[in-house]
Amino acid sequence: MNQKLGKSSIKPERPVYILESASIVGTKEGQGPLGLLFDQVGDDDMFGCNTWEEAESSLQKKAVGLALDKAGLKAGDISFLFAGDLLGQSIATSFGISSFQIPLLGVYGACSTCGESMALGTMSIAGGLADKVVCVTSSHFASAEKEFRFPLEYGNQRPLSATWTVTGSGAFVLGGESAWGGRKARARITGVTVGKIVDYGLKDSMNMGACMAPAAADTLEQHFVDFASQPDDYDKIITGDLGKVGQRVLTDLLRNKGYDISQQHMDCGIEIFDGETQDTHAGGSGCGCSAVTLSAYILKQLSEGNWRKVLFMPTGALLSKTSFNEGMSVPGIAHGLVLEAME
Amino acid sequence: MNQKLGKSSIKPERPVYILESASIVGTKEGQGPLGLLFDQVGDDDMFGCNTWEEAESSLQKKAVGLALDKAGLKAGDISFLFAGDLLGQSIATSFGISSFQIPLLGVYGACSTCGESMALGTMSIAGGLADKVVCVTSSHFASAEKEFRFPLEYGNQRPLSATWTVTGSGAFVLGGESAWGGRKARARITGVTVGKIVDYGLKDSMNMGACMAPAAADTLEQHFVDFASQPDDYDKIITGDLGKVGQRVLTDLLRNKGYDISQQHMDCGIEIFDGETQDTHAGGSGCGCSAVTLSAYILKQLSEGNWRKVLFMPTGALLSKTSFNEGMSVPGIAHGLVLEAME
Repeated sequence: MNQKLGKSSIKPERPVYILESASIVGTKEGQGPLGLLFDQVGDDDMFGCNTWEEAESSLQKKAVGLALDKAGLKAGDISFLFAGDLLGQSIATSFGISSFQIPLLGVYGACSTCGESMALGTMSIAGGLADKVVCVTSSHFASAEKEFRFPLEYGNQRPLSATWTVTGSGAFVLGGESAWGGRKARARITGVTVGKIVDYGLKDSMNMGACMAPAAADTLEQHFVDFASQPDDYDKIITGDLGKVGQRVLTDLLRNKGYDISQQHMDCGIEIFDGETQDTHAGGSGCGCSAVTLSAYILKQLSEGNWRKVLFMPTGALLSKTSFNEGMSVPGIAHGLVLEAME
Repeated sequence: MNQKLGKSSIKPERPVYILESASIVGTKEGQGPLGLLFDQVGDDDMFGCNTWEEAESSLQKKAVGLALDKAGLKAGDISFLFAGDLLGQSIATSFGISSFQIPLLGVYGACSTCGESMALGTMSIAGGLADKVVCVTSSHFASAEKEFRFPLEYGNQRPLSATWTVTGSGAFVLGGESAWGGRKARARITGVTVGKIVDYGLKDSMNMGACMAPAAADTLEQHFVDFASQPDDYDKIITGDLGKVGQRVLTDLLRNKGYDISQQHMDCGIEIFDGETQDTHAGGSGCGCSAVTLSAYILKQLSEGNWRKVLFMPTGALLSKTSFNEGMSVPGIAHGLVLEAME
């Protein structure tokens, strides 16, 4: 039994299902094009907490609780929790999900964390190491601005290449054959491609789309090679938060590699906000961006049969305020998951 | 085939081997009791770099390179790299290991990261998802002080309960049966217990041993239950960086749970420095502490047959400077690995 495929990929021999999922977002996301699809929209972005960080923690807690409820499961039914966020030392996770008392494997992949956590969750189920796992990630506009850029009170201006960090959390309950048991499920995970760090030397933290696009192109090319697939094999090829600038860079890079994805490409960051009216410039970003879009929109399209097969590939920019201030580049990473509709 | 054991553990059905390992440390660690055992000791703690963060990145790069060299492997032979560190957004990892171009799964478990990365590495091999993986983590005294406490230039005083962050990186090449091929290996990994977040509400970041000890006690108790084992079944029960205060708390907590580990307990943080002469107070700490002690000392004892079976359990304190400044507690986590000598 060899589940390793090509250089960077996994094709699970045992089926892995997304049994349920949940999304919770902030007010701005609730006003965006996908607003009506999210499970919960906050009245304000503090979510009843005293700090932005606590608010982000509460998002993870609510998303996990809601996903478990929808799946009819209790925390004690879950083998492992794969979780992470954007904040230094992943504190949104540490203070968000501790009350569930699920064995925790913390992950960090910047805004690719949704993909990474689900890749690891898929591996644990495919490998017979877990029956049911939960994968969760979050981001919050205000905690991210404080962590990476300027205090909100400065009211500083943003270039058009900048993205707007999504306030939201998405949680996913994954299960194997016995956990599924022939019931309803949202989708199947039939492939994983783990990304490498790709660093073109770009240093503009206000243009993270361009910084991450080379990593997305690298993972995508590797995916096509490992699975001997082509863009046409997917109804959608979905990146996490490249935004409008990164999208152009990605399609150009892939064209140079011999792949035309212009028909299939979709970016969660472009879908989640209306750039014309919501002043979000290049699009949405953050761990939460791809996670809530997957839960609310992508899985809906798959479960309604509108799409049969998509490649979901969250993208991450591996910078910190320290690395930025020390003049380092912004390396990127992207992890891909093949999601297929239930038969 | 069910490799899940009890509530939180895994007993791999396929053998998982630590094929090789490497350790590199700073000057203070080189002067400590284990100094002669490390593979490399730096001339100074900058390791030829311009910043502390770059220095820490170079430690990871050197440790991975050396571990691969010792194993006679190239980066291209490795399926996945499991890596993380203590810095915000894990930048020591992002800028340290990118040149190897190995598919990366970034992990965060504070100072438990060595245990977490090896737990995930073990799972990927046991699950048939990888043939060979590398697990690496690091810490650096100066980058950690800057990240969590005060600029070194302040020369601030430290209470006796404080620990000293180890400057060092340890890397481990894990492989399955075919990767091993009957050759020499350093040890076998025969069990994994994944920890939960445990938070007793302690808030003293200068006493992280006490903050982490409840998590170590929780994982240890769960381990004994899941494996139906007793302290006597192990030659050593080894925590990562509890130090002298945390050690006392751990043994007391376990005595209350009905387990006496006073004969078996060893703490990497207590072993790595001479507290009497090196002014390190409660002991060493940091992701690097358990990683370099495992590579240089614990695996040496196992491979020389002095110990047959140990439980290696790195401990992590899940705080950040933001969570500390906002008055939050310091939750802990600990992940355990059963390591056995080769037959």
